Amino acid sequence: DFELALENDIKPAFGRSEESVQKFLRRGYIGWCDEVNDILKKGRLLVEATREPESIGFVTCILSGASGSGKSCIAAKIAKESEFPFIRVFSPADMIGFSEMAKCQALQRAFSDAIKSPLSILFLDDIESILDYSPIGPRFSNLVLQAFRVLLRDPVPEGHRLLVLATSSEREFLEQVGLLKFFDHQIDVPMLTEPQHLLRVMHTSQAFKAEEMQSAVQRLEKIKNGREIVIAVGVKRMLALIDFVRRSEGDRAALLISELESSWSIREKVHEYPYSPT
Amino acid sequence: DFELALENDIKPAFGRSEESVQKFLRRGYIGWCDEVNDILKKGRLLVEATREPESIGFVTCILSGASGSGKSCIAAKIAKESEFPFIRVFSPADMIGFSEMAKCQALQRAFSDAIKSPLSILFLDDIESILDYSPIGPRFSNLVLQAFRVLLRDPVPEGHRLLVLATSSEREFLEQVGLLKFFDHQIDVPMLTEPQHLLRVMHTSQAFKAEEMQSAVQRLEKIKNGREIVIAVGVKRMLALIDFVRRSEGDRAALLISELESSWSIREKVHEYPYSPT
Amino acid sequence: DFELALENDIKPAFGRSEESVQKFLRRGYIGWCDEVNDILKKGRLLVEATREPESIGFVTCILSGASGSGKSCIAAKIAKESEFPFIRVFSPADMIGFSEMAKCQALQRAFSDAIKSPLSILFLDDIESILDYSPIGPRFSNLVLQAFRVLLRDPVPEGHRLLVLATSSEREFLEQVGLLKFFDHQIDVPMLTEPQHLLRVMHTSQAFKAEEMQSAVQRLEKIKNGREIVIAVGVKRMLALIDFVRRSEGDRAALLISELESSWSIREKVHEYPYSPT
Amino acid sequence: DFELALENDIKPAFGRSEESVQKFLRRGYIGWCDEVNDILKKGRLLVEATREPESIGFVTCILSGASGSGKSCIAAKIAKESEFPFIRVFSPADMIGFSEMAKCQALQRAFSDAIKSPLSILFLDDIESILDYSPIGPRFSNLVLQAFRVLLRDPVPEGHRLLVLATSSEREFLEQVGLLKFFDHQIDVPMLTEPQHLLRVMHTSQAFKAEEMQSAVQRLEKIKNGREIVIAVGVKRMLALIDFVRRSEGDRAALLISELESSWSIREKVHEYPYSPT
Amino acid sequence: DFELALENDIKPAFGRSEESVQKFLRRGYIGWCDEVNDILKKGRLLVEATREPESIGFVTCILSGASGSGKSCIAAKIAKESEFPFIRVFSPADMIGFSEMAKCQALQRAFSDAIKSPLSILFLDDIESILDYSPIGPRFSNLVLQAFRVLLRDPVPEGHRLLVLATSSEREFLEQVGLLKFFDHQIDVPMLTEPQHLLRVMHTSQAFKAEEMQSAVQRLEKIKNGREIVIAVGVKRMLALIDFVRRSEGDRAALLISELESSWSIREKVHEYPYSPT
Amino acid sequence: DFELALENDIKPAFGRSEESVQKFLRRGYIGWCDEVNDILKKGRLLVEATREPESIGFVTCILSGASGSGKSCIAAKIAKESEFPFIRVFSPADMIGFSEMAKCQALQRAFSDAIKSPLSILFLDDIESILDYSPIGPRFSNLVLQAFRVLLRDPVPEGHRLLVLATSSEREFLEQVGLLKFFDHQIDVPMLTEPQHLLRVMHTSQAFKAEEMQSAVQRLEKIKNGREIVIAVGVKRMLALIDFVRRSEGDRAALLISELESSWSIREKVHEYPYSPT
Ligand SMILES: Nc1ncnc2c1ncn2[C@@H]1O[C@H](COP(=O)(O)OP(=O)(O)OP(=O)(O)O)[C@@H](O)[C@H]1O
Ligand SMILES: Nc1ncnc2c1ncn2[C@@H]1O[C@H](COP(=O)(O)OP(=O)(O)OP(=O)(O)O)[C@@H](O)[C@H]1O
Ligand SMILES: Nc1ncnc2c1ncn2[C@@H]1O[C@H](COP(=O)(O)OP(=O)(O)OP(=O)(O)O)[C@@H](O)[C@H]1O
Ligand SMILES: Nc1ncnc2c1ncn2[C@@H]1O[C@H](COP(=O)(O)OP(=O)(O)OP(=O)(O)O)[C@@H](O)[C@H]1O
Ligand SMILES: Nc1ncnc2c1ncn2[C@@H]1O[C@H](COP(=O)(O)OP(=O)(O)OP(=O)(O)O)[C@@H](O)[C@H]1O
Ligand SMILES: Nc1ncnc2c1ncn2[C@@H]1O[C@H](COP(=O)(O)OP(=O)(O)OP(=O)(O)O)[C@@H](O)[C@H]1O
Ligand SMILES: [Mg+2]
Ligand SMILES: [Mg+2]
Ligand SMILES: [Mg+2]
Ligand SMILES: [Mg+2]
Ligand SMILES: [Mg+2]
Ligand SMILES: [Mg+2]
Repeated sequence: DFELALENDIKPAFGRSEESVQKFLRRGYIGWCDEVNDILKKGRLLVEATREPESIGFVTCILSGASGSGKSCIAAKIAKESEFPFIRVFSPADMIGFSEMAKCQALQRAFSDAIKSPLSILFLDDIESILDYSPIGPRFSNLVLQAFRVLLRDPVPEGHRLLVLATSSEREFLEQVGLLKFFDHQIDVPMLTEPQHLLRVMHTSQAFKAEEMQSAVQRLEKIKNGREIVIAVGVKRMLALIDFVRRSEGDRAALLISELESSWSIREKVHEYPYSPT
Repeated sequence: DFELALENDIKPAFGRSEESVQKFLRRGYIGWCDEVNDILKKGRLLVEATREPESIGFVTCILSGASGSGKSCIAAKIAKESEFPFIRVFSPADMIGFSEMAKCQALQRAFSDAIKSPLSILFLDDIESILDYSPIGPRFSNLVLQAFRVLLRDPVPEGHRLLVLATSSEREFLEQVGLLKFFDHQIDVPMLTEPQHLLRVMHTSQAFKAEEMQSAVQRLEKIKNGREIVIAVGVKRMLALIDFVRRSEGDRAALLISELESSWSIREKVHEYPYSPT
Repeated sequence: DFELALENDIKPAFGRSEESVQKFLRRGYIGWCDEVNDILKKGRLLVEATREPESIGFVTCILSGASGSGKSCIAAKIAKESEFPFIRVFSPADMIGFSEMAKCQALQRAFSDAIKSPLSILFLDDIESILDYSPIGPRFSNLVLQAFRVLLRDPVPEGHRLLVLATSSEREFLEQVGLLKFFDHQIDVPMLTEPQHLLRVMHTSQAFKAEEMQSAVQRLEKIKNGREIVIAVGVKRMLALIDFVRRSEGDRAALLISELESSWSIREKVHEYPYSPT
Repeated sequence: DFELALENDIKPAFGRSEESVQKFLRRGYIGWCDEVNDILKKGRLLVEATREPESIGFVTCILSGASGSGKSCIAAKIAKESEFPFIRVFSPADMIGFSEMAKCQALQRAFSDAIKSPLSILFLDDIESILDYSPIGPRFSNLVLQAFRVLLRDPVPEGHRLLVLATSSEREFLEQVGLLKFFDHQIDVPMLTEPQHLLRVMHTSQAFKAEEMQSAVQRLEKIKNGREIVIAVGVKRMLALIDFVRRSEGDRAALLISELESSWSIREKVHEYPYSPT
Repeated sequence: DFELALENDIKPAFGRSEESVQKFLRRGYIGWCDEVNDILKKGRLLVEATREPESIGFVTCILSGASGSGKSCIAAKIAKESEFPFIRVFSPADMIGFSEMAKCQALQRAFSDAIKSPLSILFLDDIESILDYSPIGPRFSNLVLQAFRVLLRDPVPEGHRLLVLATSSEREFLEQVGLLKFFDHQIDVPMLTEPQHLLRVMHTSQAFKAEEMQSAVQRLEKIKNGREIVIAVGVKRMLALIDFVRRSEGDRAALLISELESSWSIREKVHEYPYSPT
Repeated sequence: DFELALENDIKPAFGRSEESVQKFLRRGYIGWCDEVNDILKKGRLLVEATREPESIGFVTCILSGASGSGKSCIAAKIAKESEFPFIRVFSPADMIGFSEMAKCQALQRAFSDAIKSPLSILFLDDIESILDYSPIGPRFSNLVLQAFRVLLRDPVPEGHRLLVLATSSEREFLEQVGLLKFFDHQIDVPMLTEPQHLLRVMHTSQAFKAEEMQSAVQRLEKIKNGREIVIAVGVKRMLALIDFVRRSEGDRAALLISELESSWSIREKVHEYPYSPT
């Protein structure tokens, strides 16, 4: 039954590394703030550190951040630019309905395949999903957790070099479950929090006319000046809302901003109680 | 055993998209308040946004609201009016007694079938039931949850367009379990809360004579004027009670309203304590 | 294995609707109070509402009340009097040791059988037992719960009419688990709480001589006058105790009442503390 | 596998009713106090009530009490004296390591066998063990619980008469799990709490010489006079300690009483705080 | 699969009673304090009570105490000295990785084998391990617990005599789980708590020269005089530390005592707060 | 299925003891502080105590400490230097995805193989992973725990000598679960906490030029003098960061220290509140 699972289910999951990375880059890459560009740079340094002959050649890094903040996109870009001969995406989308055992086996196989090549990147996307994590309980697959515990620490054989790039939107869970500390490098991916970030994405989308951009600038700066507003949007939602207003009639910038507000992406900052309790 | 399940159980669940939508429209559509009509309009915009060639072409929307508030009816109407070549209803009624694994497989198949067509609607009805949710515990299928997590985010391949329409009466559970945030658009479906709403439904049912309608108007307005009464009925219960009184003798409007009261659909507003505690 | 279960276990559970209803009426029907007679009347109205051609033809009703209060007896009487061509009793007694899966399948089959006939009653007896409910935990079968959730709401196909009559002694559990709200009509069955109720049942049993009845009347009225006594007996226990004293020697009415007291069916009312705490 | 279980495991459990009852009577019956004799008398009345043609002919009774208090002994004596043509002991000792499913099946078979005979006693010994009860958790078999729920209430077919005699040392658990209320009659079996009780058992054992009995009487009455001592021993432990001292040298009555003390069967009464809290 | 387990796993566990007892006596028997010698004497009395023809011939006894206190050693000595024709050791070491079911079956077989012989000892070693007990949870096998519940109480058939000797280092767990009360006799095995205890074991080990013993006496008595020190070592650790220092250089008595201190076997008594709280 | 697992999965795990030990020594051994060197010395004494003919010849020892502190490295070095004819590494890396049952079997086989040889070391690496431990819950395999409980205490047969060396980074869990006390010797492995420790590792790495070492000395001593800083780094992270800065440009010592700070390895000591609460 397990053998069968391997035959039928796991095979299609492998052997398409190139396209897999591409899938996360369908909308290109917008360097919508400095922080994001810096993450890209650090990623390049990790690639170099893996390649470096005098180092041990086994580097592990996790990108954490809110859902839809663009983690997979950045990781995919780092992987693609590395031009390593072996790049494999290990993604929960290839393992829907897998048993814990089958996931473990697939994970172990991914590592052992990666280690066979002299210079590899293993891209573990959305590891809380690989772990079947759900916040109620919380629940997760202990079997897969144990596999991660072991594989993230097991030394790579001499003559082989491996960079493990993981993403997760559940950093705290990973911390609690004792997995976070096994990553040598831990990087946070931010959300859009400044008017400029929003404008940058709007601009790049080419969906808005000059005067609409102008109107948006004004509204957003006005909001920002008031100082009572918090902005927190993932790139993903920003792009979805731009799509939604694209063919609307009337003031599309206004519509966009009102949609951001109704989805709580722009919201009034809760006033903190000004006096300490007595 | 699983293969068997697929052969015997899943097949009949597919290939009847047209009729499936119809099932939710057996009582037609009553636009019993503006809000409901607005939801229908927003639904049409989402249909357009999915079709729009410059957008990414993958839109997800959830209709949440009390049990029996008419969510499935509205979703069915949106789907039917879209006239998309591919419309599939994915409903828990087709999966009673399914194992978690079988549900996952069916869900994955529903998405992959939908993605094969260039322009599709996937109508996920009652997703808390698909998740085998029960409030005590709470319990739910983690395997199905993981499938949703992945499928709601996995990019649709280029050249294909998909609108996912989901309904649920357990919005808070979806929030807690981290699923709500994966929907691009979240819409609330209201209950009947005004005398006018009740009258509108009564009128459309053609069950009441003119003087009965008159008598109901008076009773309800009197109630409303008193300001101590809360009305909260789902369309479903309203229609069931109209059926119940239909052939009764005596004042049927009075009977209807007394049944609404005895089922707590019309109830005295709890007086809030007028003084702050000392 | 499941197939086997179906072959061996489920078959005998069906095809004996007539006798099944009879089993709950072995002691006849005593209208021991007005409330019980009213329930019977409401039951007849539901039967009419199901039959009514202009209504949707799908009515669901639950009878809840203490264990042994006579719920199954009343439901059976309603069903029998309806003279519907299809009456099926779905009872946990036919499914001892069934797996959750087998119960689901049986339940689904019961509904689909009922729906095949143009005019049907489906009598779901003791639904907390069908749900394998136990108060410690609480535990119950989530799979069966999900089946109920779906089947109680899935529209009956046009041209078919179905009255679902359910009984349960765990109303609060059904409320908590979200099942109660799916019933269109919810009716409470009372216990014997007045001396007259007890006397009515004693009289009908023909077990007591005239002077014994007299003596019982006196004792009970004396008790009642004192105002410090609460009576709460299910019909079932009342009938069991009558059987127990039937052939006793001495004052059988006194013995009956002392047995009622020792089983806490007649008990001193706990005095509520007359002053508010300071 | 289940079929196999039935073939191999269940068969030897049946068909030895006579001897089974005898096993609980190996030490005979000592009427060591009035209360115990009264229980025996009530048992005989239940036997009569079951036989009585005008009653419904289905009587259920549970004997509860501390472990080793002699419940099974009394139940066995009632059953034996009834001289009913069918007497079956259903005991956990015959079902060690049984699966829940196998227990259910055995239980159901025991009831259906009992019901086939016109006049039967079904002796359910130690029902908390049949339920696989353990106080930590608490844990128990829900499947078996459901079987009990149904079988204890399912009406016996006309023309058949059944007395169900159960024993349990976990009355509170049965209460919590909702099973206690399904028994028509609930009887408590006491422990030895008076010096006279101990002396009665010692005397019957014929293990002590006249002067030893005398010495024991003095010690025990002295203890009792002091009023600061609580006695609470099950018959079982009492008989075990008599066996233990039987061949000892020195004052065997003294040894017996010191063993009772060291096993906390005779212990100083905890003084209750004489003043109410202020 | 279970049959297989029986074939492969259980068989080797039996038929080596003689050697099994010997395994616990590899280091001989040191009567390092009076209490331990008294336990041995009580053990001999239990052996006699089992043999005694006028007693019921079924005696159960449990030795509880800290891990490594020498429980198994004493039980083995009692069993060996009894010279009963049937002595069986039932030990968790023979059942590693057994399923609950297989353990139950083995346990039941051990009892039924023991009962076949006219005069038997069944030595149940480390019963919390037989129960798969772990303090976190706590967890344990309920199936095995149920088997113990039944087997420890089920009367031995006439003409057969059985002494059950059990050991456990988790007395409180057994109490909580309701198993302790089923043993007729409960004996506590102490740890080494006095300087004399330590010296006795050191002396018997023949590892120390006269002057080393002298030096140890002085150190220990000095410690004891100070009255601020608690000693609590199991024989097992004491013997292990003697082995550890055996070939060391320098003052081996000093090293031994410092090792006892660093493993908290000799520790400062925590001062209790001298005033009652106000 | 289990047999299959044994055939396919377990075999490769054995028969490579020599290389297995080597794997933990890939970076050699740096005696970066006295404490670590002392542990090595104690390890050698344990090796001697195992060999010693007059001792019992069964010694168990656990090395506990933070993740990445170098436990496996030290244990491997002790094992390698012992030159015992039989050295086996039992590591979770060889058992990814194993069932509990398979792990138990493998563990038991490891012990029985070790016991066959006259002089053996069994190196149990990362025993919390062997136990499938996860801190949330906590969860762990009870079956494996039971196997450990038994195997760590079961006497080695005469003529055989065994040293069990275990490592774990979850000492507290082992304590709670009752396993820690079964080890005769418990040793703590420290982290790098002094500037000198860091410098020692930097120096040995040969990655830094003399002036960089000089600059690091100054920075670290300055930090240390301030007395408000806590250093706590595992050797593992220290080596990883040295690899990371190896080919960087600019002041690599400064970069290293800033990386130590951003990973909280060097952090400000939290000031403790100087006054006791009132
Ligand atoms: N920097 C970027 N420039 C352009 N598009 C981006 C950028 N970052 C993300 N996107 C787009 O936003 C969407 C979400 O990005 P991505 O999937 O990388 O986010 P994520 O953080 O991995 O989300 P999740 O938590 O759901 O896995 C994708 O369509 C992606 O193409
Ligand atoms: N706007 C409407 N006009 C006419 N009938 C309606 C309308 N909305 C709902 N109904 C009818 O009310 C009943 C319940 O509606 P529907 O099933 O859509 O509710 P729901 O919110 O999906 O309920 P549930 O939570 O049980 O899934 C159906 O019979 C449906 O035909
Ligand atoms: N109105 C009645 N007249 C005569 N007998 C009745 C009446 N109600 C109940 N009984 C008898 O009392 C007993 C218990 O009734 P019934 O089984 O209907 O109760 P119930 O509430 O369904 O109990 P449970 O909760 O155990 O299912 C049966 O023997 C039934 O015949
Ligand atoms: N009245 C009695 N006269 C003589 N012996 C008795 C009496 N009651 C009990 N015994 C004996 O005491 C022992 C325990 O009695 P029994 O098994 O009936 O107790 P129990 O309450 O059923 O215990 P448990 O809770 O363990 O099932 C048996 O050996 C039984 O023979
Ligand atoms: N009285 C004794 N004289 C000599 N050696 C003893 C004595 N008691 C125990 N030992 C030895 O000490 C070790 C531990 O004893 P034993 O196994 O009996 O302890 P235990 O209490 O059963 O431990 P556990 O709780 O681990 O089962 C054994 O090697 C045993 O031979
Ligand atoms: N004393 C040392 N000298 C040189 N290198 C060391 C030393 N200690 C550890 N290392 C190296 O540091 C890394 C981690 O060491 P090791 O695996 O022994 O740590 P650990 O405490 O067992 O970690 P874990 O908790 O992850 O099992 C390895 O690459 C090892 O080679
Ligand atoms: Mg992602
Ligand atoms: Mg719906
Ligand atoms: Mg009923
Ligand atoms: Mg008993
Ligand atoms: Mg032991
Ligand atoms: Mg390690």
